[in-house]
Amino acid sequence: MKHITLFVAMLPTLALIVPANAAPASVRTPTADLHIGKLRDAALNDTVAYDIVEGLTTEIGQRLAATDAEARARVWAVIKLKSLGFSNVHIEPFAMPVWVRGAETAEIVSPFPQKLVLAALGNSGATPAEGITAQIVAFDGLAALQAANPAKVRGKIVYVTHHMAATQDGSGYGFFGDVRRKSPAIAAQMGAAAIVIRSIGTDTSRAPHTGATNFGTNPAIPAAALSVVDAEQLDRILKRGKPVIMKLILTPQLSPNGQSGNVVAEVPGRDPAAGVVLIGGHLDSWDLGTGAIDDGAGVAISTAAAKYILDSGVKPRRTIRIVWFGAEEPGLFGGLAYRDKHKDEPHALASESDFGADRIWKFDTKLPIGAEAVRNRLTEALAPLGIEPGNTDARGDSDVGPLVALGVSGVDMNQDGTRYFDLHHTPEDTLDKIDPVQLRQNVSAWTAMLAITANAPENLIKTPGLN
Amino acid sequence: MKHITLFVAMLPTLALIVPANAAPASVRTPTADLHIGKLRDAALNDTVAYDIVEGLTTEIGQRLAATDAEARARVWAVIKLKSLGFSNVHIEPFAMPVWVRGAETAEIVSPFPQKLVLAALGNSGATPAEGITAQIVAFDGLAALQAANPAKVRGKIVYVTHHMAATQDGSGYGFFGDVRRKSPAIAAQMGAAAIVIRSIGTDTSRAPHTGATNFGTNPAIPAAALSVVDAEQLDRILKRGKPVIMKLILTPQLSPNGQSGNVVAEVPGRDPAAGVVLIGGHLDSWDLGTGAIDDGAGVAISTAAAKYILDSGVKPRRTIRIVWFGAEEPGLFGGLAYRDKHKDEPHALASESDFGADRIWKFDTKLPIGAEAVRNRLTEALAPLGIEPGNTDARGDSDVGPLVALGVSGVDMNQDGTRYFDLHHTPEDTLDKIDPVQLRQNVSAWTAMLAITANAPENLIKTPGLN
Repeated sequence: MKHITLFVAMLPTLALIVPANAAPASVRTPTADLHIGKLRDAALNDTVAYDIVEGLTTEIGQRLAATDAEARARVWAVIKLKSLGFSNVHIEPFAMPVWVRGAETAEIVSPFPQKLVLAALGNSGATPAEGITAQIVAFDGLAALQAANPAKVRGKIVYVTHHMAATQDGSGYGFFGDVRRKSPAIAAQMGAAAIVIRSIGTDTSRAPHTGATNFGTNPAIPAAALSVVDAEQLDRILKRGKPVIMKLILTPQLSPNGQSGNVVAEVPGRDPAAGVVLIGGHLDSWDLGTGAIDDGAGVAISTAAAKYILDSGVKPRRTIRIVWFGAEEPGLFGGLAYRDKHKDEPHALASESDFGADRIWKFDTKLPIGAEAVRNRLTEALAPLGIEPGNTDARGDSDVGPLVALGVSGVDMNQDGTRYFDLHHTPEDTLDKIDPVQLRQNVSAWTAMLAITANAPENLIKTPGLN
Repeated sequence: MKHITLFVAMLPTLALIVPANAAPASVRTPTADLHIGKLRDAALNDTVAYDIVEGLTTEIGQRLAATDAEARARVWAVIKLKSLGFSNVHIEPFAMPVWVRGAETAEIVSPFPQKLVLAALGNSGATPAEGITAQIVAFDGLAALQAANPAKVRGKIVYVTHHMAATQDGSGYGFFGDVRRKSPAIAAQMGAAAIVIRSIGTDTSRAPHTGATNFGTNPAIPAAALSVVDAEQLDRILKRGKPVIMKLILTPQLSPNGQSGNVVAEVPGRDPAAGVVLIGGHLDSWDLGTGAIDDGAGVAISTAAAKYILDSGVKPRRTIRIVWFGAEEPGLFGGLAYRDKHKDEPHALASESDFGADRIWKFDTKLPIGAEAVRNRLTEALAPLGIEPGNTDARGDSDVGPLVALGVSGVDMNQDGTRYFDLHHTPEDTLDKIDPVQLRQNVSAWTAMLAITANAPENLIKTPGLN
């Protein structure tokens, strides 16, 4: 609410001052707007993005980080990006550990024998092949687990539930998502035999939501997410008041020696001193679905938009660098590798698409002083697509976040997340969940954003000390 | 369309003639209607049905025919039916074979390596433990498979797709369902190594739809249903035009020596000569979900309605016999066992609830000459619930079908099936899919139907020779 109040208070100032003061006349002319409007509207008929996400999800399918499938996806990406006409297409490899799923079954042994559906969390430890059998000790939320007496947890299977609900901006994933990110380490520290959580999701289905957890310095105990439906079943069983005994088999494997990589392509610009506009999505996916909304859509949207700039016949001022990041899911490995390798190059802007394929409804910016007019031009160009201006504290989604944190300018194109966490990290993240009409709205908005930011006459390179 | 035309043509006749001619004055009085209306409306606040389906799906879960789980369900049922106050609660056991699911995995070996999700069909044969690997040969529909040259099928994995769409009356299950019922036997006869079909379902999810198939005298080859999403993925892969090789592991087991049983309970009537009103649902379920809509809801609805008659303080003219049939799913074993054991007793009517828990929108009747007024009274009592009169050729749902086929009168209370085949026979058939408001509408309608048919002064026992 603080951000909204602030922003509304700023609106008149921006409207009165910025167009006259900061925006060079050359890009405020009807001709310039017309050019951007035409590019934007042409992109509403896009087929490039759907073609990419259809191809990637069909011909590769799941692309778990640092596995053979992700390596095949990189080869596929290089061929695709070259065929689209981009320059400087190459892979930037990096080393990382590999975690792969094994067997995973859960059953209530008593009082009501039955199987439950779950999926191991990324970085989960393993049970013996024959599994473990222990009593369930249940907690409603992370705080309840944190407050537990470790003596009551030791040797048990911890179960943590929560009450995540759908939100348009996806903010529930921050708060409720900590049940997945943090509970396993806490349970491990208390000596739990294993942990199962209610999936971090907003659906009502048997599809469990995987996702990375972080054990820190604690031992990696077996950790898994029950589907929302199975968690509710366990809730009902627990409510009967009898001790609940669960048998759990989870046999994932972790190897220290894996390789992933970022796939890079460019639309060359005219002015190297103006800095690179970095865009993209992540190429890897979890292994349960085919990674359509997470994040086949993101690489597809950002790449299709760059293709419209490439094909416009006018070389942009700035080089647009498209990166299909590797290994985002297990812990932002691709984003951190990119930052470490490229942080000393001048970057004008960084923006990533990694929140599905539903319509963009809001954009946030983080721009240097003197570049306020860029935000105004974005506002003007995106409003016809139903997109409103948001805050001026853009963080850069996932892989580009580390660069934006170093001071690089950012634009966040916020997608509607209302149904994103119905599907996120589940077997249901598949091509059919993408609405082609909303996908095209994304491409259109990204095309306008790129046309504006890649050509802005303003300086977009922040001085690190000033951020 | 023929039935609709006929019925509309009949309406004026019924309206003019039946009330005056056929309906005894005693049940056409406002008092009688008022009594039924009060029972019906009170049942709109029902909690009995939800309590039954919640308990059965939570405390037992899946109840595959002739397994230990189904035996536990019978014990649960006896306790529940006795606690509700019914009389003559007992189990009528019968012998049958037992089919149980084993491992089931499918993967595309080439050209695009990836796993697909499927579930074995009931009565499926088994692959060796290490699986089989063969080329896919694809057919669009049963007729295409029937027309195939056996030489092109021999040794291959047959894939049959189809185009089932949602319908309110569920009629698509008849036509498109034959892909599941009949294709495996045809493929086996042609020498196929195995068969996979597109699930007989109307959803877009990764949840495969199991269900029985019938090999007749052909060898039981491995037979499974891909989820709709996985079938569409296979369609896209096939469309690329390269040979598609699949590895399939299916290890179900069939044993000839199993036992199931029907659980019977009664509301005793005043007039044994008037015949029994037989109602119920089936207690068994497929093993993937917890059998909430198929058919926990059916036993719950019919039983709750009988409970309202029991508790009304007025002993009905006819005995109401509630049967929770065993082993419907693998082939109507419970219904046939009931028919064989009870067919010589006088039955006034048979009706089963086995189509989920969404609202009843139409009722069909099959009544003896002289009992037309019963249909009129049903029309009057059910219209306030949004239920219209349907045809006069009721067939009796599932387990009571064999009795109705022998000439017993029937009333079919048709539920809205628009979303039934999104969930039918999948892991998603779980408690949360039941809408409590629609469930109560079912109980209310069944209560009115029972109050009318169990008390009708008309003869409802058909003379077999006349049917």
